[in-house]
Amino acid sequence: MNVVLVGAGNVATQLGMALKNAGHEIMQVYSRTGESAAALAEKLECPYTVRLDELSDKAELYLFSLKDAVLPDVVASMKPNGGLWVHTAGSMPMNLFKGYARRYGVLYPMQTFSKIRAVDFRSIPFFIEANGEEDMMLLKQILRGITEKVYVLPSEKRKYLHLAAVFACNFTNHMYRLSEKLLEEEGIPFEVMLPLIDETAAKVHELSPAKAQTGPAVRYDLNVIDRHLSMLKTERFKEIYRLLSENIHEEAK
Amino acid sequence: MNVVLVGAGNVATQLGMALKNAGHEIMQVYSRTGESAAALAEKLECPYTVRLDELSDKAELYLFSLKDAVLPDVVASMKPNGGLWVHTAGSMPMNLFKGYARRYGVLYPMQTFSKIRAVDFRSIPFFIEANGEEDMMLLKQILRGITEKVYVLPSEKRKYLHLAAVFACNFTNHMYRLSEKLLEEEGIPFEVMLPLIDETAAKVHELSPAKAQTGPAVRYDLNVIDRHLSMLKTERFKEIYRLLSENIHEEAK
Repeated sequence: MNVVLVGAGNVATQLGMALKNAGHEIMQVYSRTGESAAALAEKLECPYTVRLDELSDKAELYLFSLKDAVLPDVVASMKPNGGLWVHTAGSMPMNLFKGYARRYGVLYPMQTFSKIRAVDFRSIPFFIEANGEEDMMLLKQILRGITEKVYVLPSEKRKYLHLAAVFACNFTNHMYRLSEKLLEEEGIPFEVMLPLIDETAAKVHELSPAKAQTGPAVRYDLNVIDRHLSMLKTERFKEIYRLLSENIHEEAK
Repeated sequence: MNVVLVGAGNVATQLGMALKNAGHEIMQVYSRTGESAAALAEKLECPYTVRLDELSDKAELYLFSLKDAVLPDVVASMKPNGGLWVHTAGSMPMNLFKGYARRYGVLYPMQTFSKIRAVDFRSIPFFIEANGEEDMMLLKQILRGITEKVYVLPSEKRKYLHLAAVFACNFTNHMYRLSEKLLEEEGIPFEVMLPLIDETAAKVHELSPAKAQTGPAVRYDLNVIDRHLSMLKTERFKEIYRLLSENIHEEAK
């Protein structure tokens, strides 16, 4: 299948590579930023453009991987064509394509992508949606070579899924970052924390997070909690510790 | 080596099993709660007691795995003997033994333990401390059969390590829990989140958490942030989302 990538960020990069590896042809890459477009085009061995009006209208699939804030504008600026237009945004509705494309859908890979880290796509769950039954089949077919986990999910539910992913991934990573900061101040390498991080993740494969909870907050050990609060140096840091500890305690009651 | 376990909670259970498997002899288990003491004693095939004055004074190692709040009292209630007294608490100083035991130390396994989930000890980092060089060697020797990762760390640093572990483990698990709650409300199984959770943990083996951060907060995508806030149902939930997003944004600046 011939694909045009609209966007050249983390998701476009990883998904573009996966599509290419699965045998699809990337016809063209678009990005407003010449540098990003060129870098991804080089990886995918295809042409690129920084102008929307230079986009090919011959592709079968147009894959939009853009910041939510710019996605609707870019869609509205494009000339209609016969291809299937699909975006990869967790929290944007499918209907943003309405009035601009005849065939459209969503293909949301729920994973955290960075340009420099390759990801094993086979285990990534994809949540898809389309405005026609045939295009839904087409999306399933495209994904067949990429992942085993394809779920059909309407926009209304997908936005909650995306919100849940912010907690499980983005906020979790921020907890790692705060942990790293505390260790940095004491000259302890972050590396020592990795076995604990791995086990914390592995544990919820077996126990629900509610049952997996350990630590001073769930025991409501105020001795430890107060000592920890006094060790944290900024008001913001204390506030985070206090709020999360209270919430863990509330949950456990 | 002959060991007496003072405490029968999650840490005592897992560590007691590991010591037994490494060839040490568990002489006796103490817990204030008869039920916990009996359950662990059965696993370890040894006698138990609920009375401190019935503790054997013949052991070479006394391992205290108790809530921080009760640890000093239990230590103060024990009769002195010739054994090495060691506690497993991340944030309690070694010196709490001073005046009660002649030989003492700390053996802190940095991991999250639940009674019903077995843990692979070989990858767990242990942070140790002792009031004498010989006992430090003895602790290293005991751990040789259990883990490859033994670090000597003074109490002053260990308490920061423990605080960092609260973020990397306890608060991280709470993020999983909040994610699970959001999915429950939509009837989506938590299982779909596991590949994302695994990748989020795996990623920080390669990238620092600061570099691994993704999501609306680090992009400071206010469209998404505001939409997410409006989807959260309780004030507490919104407060957590807002505080963490602001902090991610501050960090990224």
